Amino acid sequence: MTTHNIPRVERPEGYKHPFLEAAMGRPTPRPPVWIMRQAGRYLADYRRVRKTFPNFLEFCRTPDAVAEVTVQPVDQVGVDAAILFSDILVLLPPMGLNLEFVEGEGPVVHNPLRDAATIAALPGGNVGDDINVDLSYVFEGIRRTQANLQGYVPLIGFAGGPFTVASYMVEGGSSKELAKLKGLMYADPAAYHMLLSKLANLTASYLIEQARQGANALTIMDSWAGYLGPRDYREFAQPYTQRIVKAVKAAFPEIPVIHYANGAPSLLSDFVGLGADVVGLDWRVELDDAFKAHPHQVFQGNLDPSYLTAPIEKIRARVAEMKQVVGNRPHVWNLGHGIMPHISPDHARAFVDAVHGD
Amino acid sequence: MTTHNIPRVERPEGYKHPFLEAAMGRPTPRPPVWIMRQAGRYLADYRRVRKTFPNFLEFCRTPDAVAEVTVQPVDQVGVDAAILFSDILVLLPPMGLNLEFVEGEGPVVHNPLRDAATIAALPGGNVGDDINVDLSYVFEGIRRTQANLQGYVPLIGFAGGPFTVASYMVEGGSSKELAKLKGLMYADPAAYHMLLSKLANLTASYLIEQARQGANALTIMDSWAGYLGPRDYREFAQPYTQRIVKAVKAAFPEIPVIHYANGAPSLLSDFVGLGADVVGLDWRVELDDAFKAHPHQVFQGNLDPSYLTAPIEKIRARVAEMKQVVGNRPHVWNLGHGIMPHISPDHARAFVDAVHGD
Repeated sequence: MTTHNIPRVERPEGYKHPFLEAAMGRPTPRPPVWIMRQAGRYLADYRRVRKTFPNFLEFCRTPDAVAEVTVQPVDQVGVDAAILFSDILVLLPPMGLNLEFVEGEGPVVHNPLRDAATIAALPGGNVGDDINVDLSYVFEGIRRTQANLQGYVPLIGFAGGPFTVASYMVEGGSSKELAKLKGLMYADPAAYHMLLSKLANLTASYLIEQARQGANALTIMDSWAGYLGPRDYREFAQPYTQRIVKAVKAAFPEIPVIHYANGAPSLLSDFVGLGADVVGLDWRVELDDAFKAHPHQVFQGNLDPSYLTAPIEKIRARVAEMKQVVGNRPHVWNLGHGIMPHISPDHARAFVDAVHGD
Repeated sequence: MTTHNIPRVERPEGYKHPFLEAAMGRPTPRPPVWIMRQAGRYLADYRRVRKTFPNFLEFCRTPDAVAEVTVQPVDQVGVDAAILFSDILVLLPPMGLNLEFVEGEGPVVHNPLRDAATIAALPGGNVGDDINVDLSYVFEGIRRTQANLQGYVPLIGFAGGPFTVASYMVEGGSSKELAKLKGLMYADPAAYHMLLSKLANLTASYLIEQARQGANALTIMDSWAGYLGPRDYREFAQPYTQRIVKAVKAAFPEIPVIHYANGAPSLLSDFVGLGADVVGLDWRVELDDAFKAHPHQVFQGNLDPSYLTAPIEKIRARVAEMKQVVGNRPHVWNLGHGIMPHISPDHARAFVDAVHGD
């Protein structure tokens, strides 16, 4: 708790959360907004909690800390949904990969996948395979967050898209070109497809368990899908993301599924084809172009995250222009990518307030 | 000269270079191909020359070395055009910026632009301003390269797009998000526009001088344009690139101008609107989509550079499929982005041979 907290308004009996309503394509009295990476370094209280952990994975594995930072932006920035503080790479250690987050460098996988034999040995190939026991700290984090939220706003769970998660497993970390992953894809497609299939199976079961444990919505972050051209995306990534969406929707039809990818404007219609309830847009797509091309799809986004460096009156003016474009369409407001660490919380708050019309 | 050199075929009197013909939209008996970054680290002879210089800028400033490495891929890989070995940032020192290429890190600008006063003090604001005297080493490199080429293939000169060059001047180096440049753009648009206007003026005069000194074609590399959404691109980048294209075409109507940007599929029709003779595509756009949307535009590209890691027979098969799509259309073959340092020259050669049908 800090002095900055926005007082929580009481929710009347039968209150319908604008975020869940808009995500399912239903009209809302007030537009909902959340911010990718909203539980993050731009908040002083996040940095305070982060400092108490020797490394990032330890932080992710501590349910009380997770529950604390997940709720911070709800009370300090006024967003309409919380998103569980975690990482798309938490699947790697239970799959046998030696993952480390190196300060100032990012994720490093010390035993990256290099051949078909190693991929064949991974779990995920059989019906019923899951790694959920090893991820029980995530589910405990969900339960404790819900105890903090008390139904005030919905909680979003998430996982990475199989193509994106595979990139870290094969490259051994972040990569500018994904040349090793694409090398596997082009040179040994059978091994590549085996890896993606296993990731799709495990991810589906992981997301379904998040919903069972209390997540109210689920996001698939396929951050690097935009490294693929449309033809390769359809062959090498889309079928696996689609398998996940289908499995989750079959298990929990009323839980909205959001798909997000960065830097992939030429894949927009392929993303719409995934069957997710909401398709996230980065700022490279104009909202009205997306609306015209796909009149029945709910979208999320898409203010350029750099816009939050502008003076507050400019942020307000830009949101007002975007509101003209959105009109009465159900829409989930967000940035086009994650909020940057150097952004002032006041500017994040100004964005949220402008969306709300406050 | 190495033992790998492909013997030069004699050019008959009045020979029409397929690269120049296709670039101007005229049919060619054999499809032309060149490779972005073809004079680069994947060639052992390039690495041999590079090692003799203490730093990258010194290398760029030595006309004999430039002429040598520029011609290497013509004789070793068989490409149909040479592109002058240089860098888009050579404009920075004559403009008063302290540029250094730091080994393993890339370009660093030690006195990045931060305010309107510094931008106002830069050259480029008046008619006739140029920095060509300080860039005489580039023109000498063009003359010596032409002496090596002896008319065997055309020579491409190039410069960076104003938005991309400005990004290094403001960020102080490479950047993942261009947050400082966008900060200037959104917070102080007048200063931003002054900078871009100056860069457009100086770049136009620089490219025109390259043509006067013997360049047979010119490329504008606006590598980071894809960081902008369409609306921002039209307001903050396109007018300046357009000014350059117009000035160059007015001075040299018969010299083809190629525009290239990476990762910007949502800006394709804006690039077509620039009036360049050739629009470069990265691999995120399917050729047939581009052809259908813009039937009268000549395009360049666009094999995924990672595809050169695949076995040679797969490269051949992929090019054969692409040839079905290109048909008899004038087209400039290339990768969708620069060739990567770890690619085998044999695979580069296989790509070129496959395009030629050899």
